[in-house]
Amino acid sequence: MHCKAADGEIFIPYARGRLCPSCYINFFERKVKRTVSKYRMIQEGDRVAVAVSGGKDSSSLMHALKKTFPNVEFTGIYINLGIGGYSDECETILTDFLKKLEVDFIVYDVRKELGISVEDFKRTYFKGRLCSPCGTIKRYLLNKIAYEEGFTKLATGHNLDDLVEVLFNAYIHGDVSQLARIKPVLPSSHEKFVVKIKPLCELTERENLLYAECSKIPYRTIACPLSARARSRRGKKVIDKIAESIPYFKHAFFKSHLKKLSRFFEPEASIHPIVECKVCGMPSSTSPCAFCKRLQLVKEVNNRGRDD
Amino acid sequence: MHCKAADGEIFIPYARGRLCPSCYINFFERKVKRTVSKYRMIQEGDRVAVAVSGGKDSSSLMHALKKTFPNVEFTGIYINLGIGGYSDECETILTDFLKKLEVDFIVYDVRKELGISVEDFKRTYFKGRLCSPCGTIKRYLLNKIAYEEGFTKLATGHNLDDLVEVLFNAYIHGDVSQLARIKPVLPSSHEKFVVKIKPLCELTERENLLYAECSKIPYRTIACPLSARARSRRGKKVIDKIAESIPYFKHAFFKSHLKKLSRFFEPEASIHPIVECKVCGMPSSTSPCAFCKRLQLVKEVNNRGRDD
Repeated sequence: MHCKAADGEIFIPYARGRLCPSCYINFFERKVKRTVSKYRMIQEGDRVAVAVSGGKDSSSLMHALKKTFPNVEFTGIYINLGIGGYSDECETILTDFLKKLEVDFIVYDVRKELGISVEDFKRTYFKGRLCSPCGTIKRYLLNKIAYEEGFTKLATGHNLDDLVEVLFNAYIHGDVSQLARIKPVLPSSHEKFVVKIKPLCELTERENLLYAECSKIPYRTIACPLSARARSRRGKKVIDKIAESIPYFKHAFFKSHLKKLSRFFEPEASIHPIVECKVCGMPSSTSPCAFCKRLQLVKEVNNRGRDD
Repeated sequence: MHCKAADGEIFIPYARGRLCPSCYINFFERKVKRTVSKYRMIQEGDRVAVAVSGGKDSSSLMHALKKTFPNVEFTGIYINLGIGGYSDECETILTDFLKKLEVDFIVYDVRKELGISVEDFKRTYFKGRLCSPCGTIKRYLLNKIAYEEGFTKLATGHNLDDLVEVLFNAYIHGDVSQLARIKPVLPSSHEKFVVKIKPLCELTERENLLYAECSKIPYRTIACPLSARARSRRGKKVIDKIAESIPYFKHAFFKSHLKKLSRFFEPEASIHPIVECKVCGMPSSTSPCAFCKRLQLVKEVNNRGRDD
């Protein structure tokens, strides 16, 4: 399947032999294509929004999708969360990258649109764990923009390591509703929820990094300054430790979950009734929705700041 | 709850303060008692067989049960598997220990009773993984003897580390029928199956070792010579690695499984119909049962050996 170049330096345990950069690119893109078709992620006529962050995973995703599915419409959506010295750099990198890739690009700047920034949460009770409200805001806005712009799918760059980390935590804590949601395609449970797809779900963080390097994809090199103590970073270290002892751990655990266990939790995915948020009108399990609550919280803190 | 002795040297993360040996013994026995009552393991009138191996876990179990439930009848059952330089030593230690403890002791020697030894499996296709047929034989005989001798419960020394190791593997491989069986009390699905109880299921390997040391319980100090490469030993190392990063891992994982997840797998526990083994008449999912198949295998290999 690949060249016999003597300079093949890339070793992927389950690929035959060592790959040269150009063969690795082929290997990676074939795998993305196979994942998309295996889980029926993209159908004819789909308009696909790709959530881009400026990181290696989502930029690799956009690059591989665009090359593999030349007839599908892809558009990047970036949420600029106003994190000083970070968000703007990511936006600049993305603007340049997506222009060269010739795909449309939607930027939503929370400072301009909502008058807040994720940094404002430092003065709320979320102080030490800003990833939580940041995630809520990002997820909400990505879906809302994709919905309002008429996209039929929302693709994210979640890789196997991301999913295994969430899965592992969900099993440790018996978080059944989370267990019911971890899958390659999350169907829509309301017309205003866009179907979410994860075409990189079977590729590891390392494989995405290698693809970005081999394809010379520009990506941010600094980590988010607010997430240094993030739970997910510690969680990934544990996952990597396990994989050192059990090399097949990540793939086997994810596969067993999908093929053998997730069906048991499936009924739990739909037991929480969906209501309409009385503030924004978007579907949610609570009203006001988590996004509107976080927004309200930050606005109160900001106003108090101004009054002082 | 415990003395203020300045020499408290035993630290248990979830016990208050440091414990001296005598307080540790109290702590351990209270915990065994609480576990037995929480999961309703022993009722009035029960005759309890305790599977003893000569190791620290099962001897600690027997010792703690005997002290904590003075009015219950306990009997040790030991399966001598004929492992050279190991099985007989374990039997000697146990004979002495159980005599001092004043409990009845049943020894079943597979060489005398069946004319085989677990070592014979070295010449079968089980060669490199003798723990598998050994486990089959032990489980079968312990249940059969307990049933035939009229015991109502069969207690085993499985500790939290044992259970978490099995649980972890079952989740990685999506082994649903195993997931349905990992619990403190395994009810009987057939009149010839004795109810199995695991009173040490919430105590770690380290806690059992400490109890054996503090109570001066004699136990074998050499490991089984056939299990050096056992999967479970490697598995436990992984579990300990995880626990180094997530100190509450073992307890949380087991508890979440029991309280939140196991109910989903429950229906799977009973989907395999039980048939009667046409060779031995014991209940099993196959006929001949796994025990009779292993026995037949070894006898064939032994006969062939004699013919040569």
